[in-house]
Amino acid sequence: MTYDDNNVFAKILRGELPCHKVYETDRILAFMDVMPRGDGHVLVIPKAKARNLLDVAPDDLAELAKAVQVVGKAAKAALSADGLTVQQFNESAGGQVVFHIHFHVIPRFEGVALKPHTGQMEKPDVLTGMAEKIRAAVART
Amino acid sequence: MTYDDNNVFAKILRGELPCHKVYETDRILAFMDVMPRGDGHVLVIPKAKARNLLDVAPDDLAELAKAVQVVGKAAKAALSADGLTVQQFNESAGGQVVFHIHFHVIPRFEGVALKPHTGQMEKPDVLTGMAEKIRAAVART
Repeated sequence: MTYDDNNVFAKILRGELPCHKVYETDRILAFMDVMPRGDGHVLVIPKAKARNLLDVAPDDLAELAKAVQVVGKAAKAALSADGLTVQQFNESAGGQVVFHIHFHVIPRFEGVALKPHTGQMEKPDVLTGMAEKIRAAVART
Repeated sequence: MTYDDNNVFAKILRGELPCHKVYETDRILAFMDVMPRGDGHVLVIPKAKARNLLDVAPDDLAELAKAVQVVGKAAKAALSADGLTVQQFNESAGGQVVFHIHFHVIPRFEGVALKPHTGQMEKPDVLTGMAEKIRAAVART
């Protein structure tokens, strides 16, 4: 299993595709999932190239986990959510679609189920608004 | 949100309840989920007290993520799985049932969906066999 330099997140990291950024460090990028399974659904990725959990450098994974916490706490606070669901998929059988390692961070609300994977894109305005709220909450941490 | 010293995983850590152990360090314990959503479903927890992602110390979380990788790679190899699904739930709205932070690491197989949460316990013999296989694979890493 090798790393494909033309995966969508590699293109986002190179600035070849846009994203609704919520958090960035020298090693991490976090942005809105354009097909959210719930309000405020964020993806957190390392800038280092790694396909998934099977090949990521342990130190990059540790840094990624810390960023998941920063973004998760901010997203929960920003949206006054009741909880968070974190998911990380490896290989097609594991649910992985984009082959650059990523964590899904999904704010959760009492009584609201995750939306199914419909493949439907969220409206850009909605994503921009969510990103602004979460970015502001990150800045407050 | 405080840490409840009487949660099931706290009892396992204190040796008051048994578990099918697959991996242990001075900071980490990993053991079979007794209500698996798939073959080889393992839970990975820190020995440090933390309720979930919202209160865990970043350094404990980093260590936990590294252990998730060790256990995930071993479980996939041990069962010749095609992928891995990793889940981490926070607060009831996020899907959390036991309030000591844990990662679910679930080996996945092409064409096999996750089992629903039926609340049905797996047979101890099956769990013992899975734990042995994964423990042996961890030892080979």
